Amino acid sequence: MAKLTKREENYSQWYNELVVKADLAENSDVRGCMVIKPYGYAIWEKMQAALDKMFKDTGHSNAYFPLFVPKSLFEAEEQNAEGFAKECAVVTHYRLKNDPKKKGKLIVDPDAKLEEELIVRPTSEAIIWKTYKNWIQSYRDLPILINQWANVVRWEMRTRLFLRTAEFLWQEGHTAHATKVEAIEETERMINVYSEFAEKFMALPVLKGLKTPAERFAGAIETYCIEALMQDGKALQAGTSHFLGQNFAKAFDVKFANKEGSQDYVWATSWGVSTRLIGALIMAHSDDFGLVLPPQLAPIHVVIVPIYKGEEQLAQISEIALNIKSSLEKQGLTVKFDNRDTHKPGFKFAEYEMKGVPVRIAIGPKDLENGSVEIARRDTLSKETKPMNEVVDYITELMVEIQESIFSKAKKFQESNTHEVDNFEDFKSKLNETGGFISAHWDGSPETEELIKKETKATIRCIPLNNPREEGVCVRSGKPSSQRVIFAKSY
Amino acid sequence: MAKLTKREENYSQWYNELVVKADLAENSDVRGCMVIKPYGYAIWEKMQAALDKMFKDTGHSNAYFPLFVPKSLFEAEEQNAEGFAKECAVVTHYRLKNDPKKKGKLIVDPDAKLEEELIVRPTSEAIIWKTYKNWIQSYRDLPILINQWANVVRWEMRTRLFLRTAEFLWQEGHTAHATKVEAIEETERMINVYSEFAEKFMALPVLKGLKTPAERFAGAIETYCIEALMQDGKALQAGTSHFLGQNFAKAFDVKFANKEGSQDYVWATSWGVSTRLIGALIMAHSDDFGLVLPPQLAPIHVVIVPIYKGEEQLAQISEIALNIKSSLEKQGLTVKFDNRDTHKPGFKFAEYEMKGVPVRIAIGPKDLENGSVEIARRDTLSKETKPMNEVVDYITELMVEIQESIFSKAKKFQESNTHEVDNFEDFKSKLNETGGFISAHWDGSPETEELIKKETKATIRCIPLNNPREEGVCVRSGKPSSQRVIFAKSY
Repeated sequence: MAKLTKREENYSQWYNELVVKADLAENSDVRGCMVIKPYGYAIWEKMQAALDKMFKDTGHSNAYFPLFVPKSLFEAEEQNAEGFAKECAVVTHYRLKNDPKKKGKLIVDPDAKLEEELIVRPTSEAIIWKTYKNWIQSYRDLPILINQWANVVRWEMRTRLFLRTAEFLWQEGHTAHATKVEAIEETERMINVYSEFAEKFMALPVLKGLKTPAERFAGAIETYCIEALMQDGKALQAGTSHFLGQNFAKAFDVKFANKEGSQDYVWATSWGVSTRLIGALIMAHSDDFGLVLPPQLAPIHVVIVPIYKGEEQLAQISEIALNIKSSLEKQGLTVKFDNRDTHKPGFKFAEYEMKGVPVRIAIGPKDLENGSVEIARRDTLSKETKPMNEVVDYITELMVEIQESIFSKAKKFQESNTHEVDNFEDFKSKLNETGGFISAHWDGSPETEELIKKETKATIRCIPLNNPREEGVCVRSGKPSSQRVIFAKSY
Repeated sequence: MAKLTKREENYSQWYNELVVKADLAENSDVRGCMVIKPYGYAIWEKMQAALDKMFKDTGHSNAYFPLFVPKSLFEAEEQNAEGFAKECAVVTHYRLKNDPKKKGKLIVDPDAKLEEELIVRPTSEAIIWKTYKNWIQSYRDLPILINQWANVVRWEMRTRLFLRTAEFLWQEGHTAHATKVEAIEETERMINVYSEFAEKFMALPVLKGLKTPAERFAGAIETYCIEALMQDGKALQAGTSHFLGQNFAKAFDVKFANKEGSQDYVWATSWGVSTRLIGALIMAHSDDFGLVLPPQLAPIHVVIVPIYKGEEQLAQISEIALNIKSSLEKQGLTVKFDNRDTHKPGFKFAEYEMKGVPVRIAIGPKDLENGSVEIARRDTLSKETKPMNEVVDYITELMVEIQESIFSKAKKFQESNTHEVDNFEDFKSKLNETGGFISAHWDGSPETEELIKKETKATIRCIPLNNPREEGVCVRSGKPSSQRVIFAKSY
């Protein structure tokens, strides 16, 4: 297996190669759309399972709404429509017919033109709020707490596997509430769920905060986000939770009779994370040898590789390996015994390093003599020899340690790459030399935000929640500011 | 809650009303597309979980392929293209723009026309085999055993909730093999998985068989199916597994080096079941009071309804109810305690009957005195009074009994509605009077099959697997026949 480009040489190329070599995904024949391969999809399934449980534990149910949004619904909430109109796939016809000029070829049947075009959903607020209108008459019908696992399409011009693709998989929560307070509580509850998921499962420390108006979701009153820092010093938005106010209720005329008997517009939230998280997971932890996966999301926790000469040795090793496998599986771990005779151990070692399997056990002739096995950690690349009878306990504990260790490494990285700067020269030099989160004063105006973006490519990633008040002056305009915000270049 | 139309009066209307009243699904604003509501989706999640485990236990992995199929790929396998071209959604543009004539309105941007149209997948053979081409070089790359959970779109003109919708959810397995024998084994393995799933989880007896050439999947060499009988005597195709031969490998030029070192085309299968199964589940078991759900797929197994006057009685009942709930949950059952004070017990009884909750426990003042509870079975509508301390064991066993009982009722129905007929008069009268599966001799010609379809609306549902040989004459043509096949009107 050819080696990866090193991160230091070309981080972007390292990422692109890694996604393919670790067998996670590849580009398809459809512009901007990816194929998620079984190993990559298995990570997504682990993410889905964990998130789905967290959603259900917070009172949500899953449902499913149509893939298509009729144009008239799509345009109902103007800001939202404006935000997505420029990048959407439009269905205009419902039939092909044989090309009279070329046998075996098909053409769009002009007689099968739709009366009204259908937009492939870039997000589902429009179709869902049109549906909620029929479900909501009184406060007794509220709250509605629904999530949907679905594919969405945004016609992005520049795409990268997982990070930005024309079609991607995600979940989108859409909730309806009787009061503003309740809706804001829900918005905050879900950003906390995302942050807990990122830290506990992805081992990814995140900053929680609010987006500036310029960076808000189209149609939102307030967008909460979690922002993670990648190893190249760029930020990645890992999840968003939107307080939509009454915008969609007004666009679709969704009113309810409140407890006092008068009519009021319903309050809304929406929140989502996507397969982009897999991109974040890869970029946050992996190294020049390949993927590093936290055990909580690893499709395979342990791989056992036999090192042997001849069938007899293999048989002896297999017996031990299968015993260890079955004991570890009883602890809830997924174990692969790779006894392929078509590949050498060294090849297998490199392959599982590339795929980020957290722990590798190697068993060879010396181990048979000594009653030991060699245990290698993927995250630290360290090896230890352990007596066979201690292996199961040791590895079970090791999984917890690896998970914590990957998190704390990422946390330290985040901390040492968060820089307070107080003037624009420092701002620019930090940004270009080390990157990272730049904590700086900003005057609060969209004009200054836009200027900084133009001049440095840095955007305001978020205004941290519970941000301490601090008097200062804006790094760009010199105008007064009462708090620091987080800038970064971003994915 | 208004009562359902009775099945005898109008079976079709009964079904339509039931789907809506049981809160399973509803029509959306998008022609032919449904909204699957949380209660309906919960049934789908149960189906998915069971099937997904069966797929993984038989060696399959999940992956994800693009929603769109470029037209040139779509038309590559001619039969398949022919079969789906007339009912597909076509994306022709990738952008909207503001309507210069009407403020706030959007129009399709003519400058954003795609060079090549994209078909919204009606099934994914084309895009998947184009992808497999790059994955397969030698026999060592085979078999590929992949499944995908996805949405697909077929532009059906007449749609009905779950049974036939323009967009539906399904899984599609796509496997690649080195030999014909292996591919046929896989095709048969998966029809057996479907049949086991239908019988064990859906409590739905099915006939396994082969489709005639006229009824085969477009592009298949052989289509295996499972056919179930609905209460109105019509058949419903509940799942299919296709042996695709080398058709797709040839269309996409997918060859591999076999063990002997020569190049050969890869052998293929595909197999799928969809949200249509929910329609089958509803129609097979439900009655004039509403849904009847087998416990294996019921989102809620037990509902507890308190019957009380005043807060004090409610408090006493609640304590008992919550104890029972927690004990049943320890047995893996899902239990709802409905203590809403906005609805009377009678209303709740009717609601849970409509929703098909398998067991209802009612606890009232007399029960408090006697230390008993009332247990009602949804499937038989029978009630029993049981001592409180026996409730948990009793209900745990009852779940198994209900599951079996629903199955054997359906099995008896299937048996008593399978009719051997030996002439065309009997054929027509059975078909019109009682419906059901008609077992009759057929001469094996597509012409006779077509004639019978035109004259009676009955189609050949399948040629049963392991069909006994029996000399006879075709009911329609009088020509010789060596086996009976199964005819029915169908959904």
